[in-house]
Amino acid sequence: MNGEQEFLNDLVTSIRPLDRAAMAAARQRQNNLTKPAGSLGRLEELAIWLAGVTGELTPATEPRTVIVMAGDHGVTSEGVSAYPSEVTPQMVMNFLGGGAAINVLADQARAKVLVVDLGVATEMGEVSGLVARKVGPGTANIAVGPAMSRPQALKALRIGAELAESEIAAGARLLATGEMGIGNTTPASALICALTDTAPEVIVGRGTGLDDAGLEHKRKVVGRALASNRSALTDPVDALAAIGGYEIAGMVGSILAGAARRRPVVLDGFIAGAAALVAARIAPTARNYMVAGHLSAEPGHLVALNALELQPLLNLSLRLGEGTGAVLAFHLIDAATRIMAEMATFSEASISRAVER
Amino acid sequence: MNGEQEFLNDLVTSIRPLDRAAMAAARQRQNNLTKPAGSLGRLEELAIWLAGVTGELTPATEPRTVIVMAGDHGVTSEGVSAYPSEVTPQMVMNFLGGGAAINVLADQARAKVLVVDLGVATEMGEVSGLVARKVGPGTANIAVGPAMSRPQALKALRIGAELAESEIAAGARLLATGEMGIGNTTPASALICALTDTAPEVIVGRGTGLDDAGLEHKRKVVGRALASNRSALTDPVDALAAIGGYEIAGMVGSILAGAARRRPVVLDGFIAGAAALVAARIAPTARNYMVAGHLSAEPGHLVALNALELQPLLNLSLRLGEGTGAVLAFHLIDAATRIMAEMATFSEASISRAVER
Repeated sequence: MNGEQEFLNDLVTSIRPLDRAAMAAARQRQNNLTKPAGSLGRLEELAIWLAGVTGELTPATEPRTVIVMAGDHGVTSEGVSAYPSEVTPQMVMNFLGGGAAINVLADQARAKVLVVDLGVATEMGEVSGLVARKVGPGTANIAVGPAMSRPQALKALRIGAELAESEIAAGARLLATGEMGIGNTTPASALICALTDTAPEVIVGRGTGLDDAGLEHKRKVVGRALASNRSALTDPVDALAAIGGYEIAGMVGSILAGAARRRPVVLDGFIAGAAALVAARIAPTARNYMVAGHLSAEPGHLVALNALELQPLLNLSLRLGEGTGAVLAFHLIDAATRIMAEMATFSEASISRAVER
Repeated sequence: MNGEQEFLNDLVTSIRPLDRAAMAAARQRQNNLTKPAGSLGRLEELAIWLAGVTGELTPATEPRTVIVMAGDHGVTSEGVSAYPSEVTPQMVMNFLGGGAAINVLADQARAKVLVVDLGVATEMGEVSGLVARKVGPGTANIAVGPAMSRPQALKALRIGAELAESEIAAGARLLATGEMGIGNTTPASALICALTDTAPEVIVGRGTGLDDAGLEHKRKVVGRALASNRSALTDPVDALAAIGGYEIAGMVGSILAGAARRRPVVLDGFIAGAAALVAARIAPTARNYMVAGHLSAEPGHLVALNALELQPLLNLSLRLGEGTGAVLAFHLIDAATRIMAEMATFSEASISRAVER
């Protein structure tokens, strides 16, 4: 057994159930706040869940970090994306320069953006602010064989986990998973097909903007990826290596580490959904530490969230990735925690309770 | 013609169409930002709409105000609410003390809370911070006759409009409509039934927490209100007077004033939906200045929003009112304006465009 496999085994073992006592206390407090019971809907559920995750009635939600993992995909040689692969490093530079959507929305949400090169195809060189952890120069073409080896997948997963742990050690109370990788809706589609046993016709979408012919072609490419790697698809880590990507493996690691360290993990969209499915197959308890920030416009996302039994917080037809939908959801998590911490109770405010009829 | 009717006529006349040129410029800028075209979904639509409302490409969204109108309802004598009417003034005091959900969520969203007594049944006395504009001590019971006279409805509407105008004159760039009034889901239900020609069975919900028998009873009360006031229901102002409420009339005025002064008006839930329907029947163009902050758990809200052709931004099963769902949506409006103002363009960031296939 190598070091990375032991690391993963230890990580999985350290994920504990939610704190049921804290959740019961949170539910009781919700019912004493000056509003009809249940009238704040998802905000109340969120507050109770946050208590279960953290063990605290009024947990802090700052500081917080969105980890944006970047990687390239050999399958782009099949023509599955409207954008060329050179956009991956260009967007990494845009993240570091502060000009991308995730920078703007993370700034609004007071979240740190951690930009990680896990598998960009080109050499990035010395770049200030970039966390350089390249496992390989882009994956191999999944349409004809495995994206990477199992040791490479385990290595990328460990890096993602250790980065999350490092953020948590530095104080992070909330994590979000983001990514950038031209072509990565194709491996994400393949993973969701494989892990939910669903046909590519249901899962595959237009990504960043394919036309009808492009969509049809992408479905066939995903079908070929599933056929070419069929023997690897029964084990979640083998599937991740065969039809995943470096940044997806990194996200799996971050999600598992967040769960192990009892931090809420806010999932972004379609790619994060694929990573979350892998994480939940590796460690079913990890699912309890996830919240779905939003429902993506990609059709397969709902299939992934249903398999995870997660209800998205937002539904804004986003299909950008980067972590944008996750950091938008931070405002709702803040709202839930503030309601719990700051509202008056019925007795504090001398307000009459509901009449029993 | 009395003064209030002239005031309303002038208000309606001053509502102009959206600025189509500003919207075209906003759409063009969205397509030059470093993201696939359309990939930010509703945020892009919001930014384009905000340009149409304000005439500005990157409008400010602060300062902003949620106007919380309070009023009581004679129909509570029919036993339509789980809470006693004394909770209305108690909650007004809670708003002024800062302990209610709207205080917490408005503070998070950096919004001012303006608390207005338009028709609380009890005498509030001298209360610091309260805007005392009582038109009447609660409405009459709509199950047996009109809630108020047409002059009273026009007076409450004018007060709501003038308060909004005063906030705008003081700098407000964004308005939200909130309310408090034990029993007010009953008049709101009646208004939505009347203005969308829908049966009480479809519109009436559990409000703050009725059981099955209470729900059935409330449906019958709404049916009686519609029957008792049938002759008044063809004109929107007459309908507002007959089956509305003082705080609902005030909200209608605030909505119309926001539209007239080209400020985005963020609607809260079910009660605001009823007020918005009245406003749109009085002045159809006003609808273009509204955005639905959220979809309420009250079943009739969707019917109201469909009639207004508005898509809610959030869907969190809220059913509290006060303006809570509206100020939560402020974060999404901020996100839309920040994206427009702060993201880099493709040329600024030297990023390759999508390949035409």
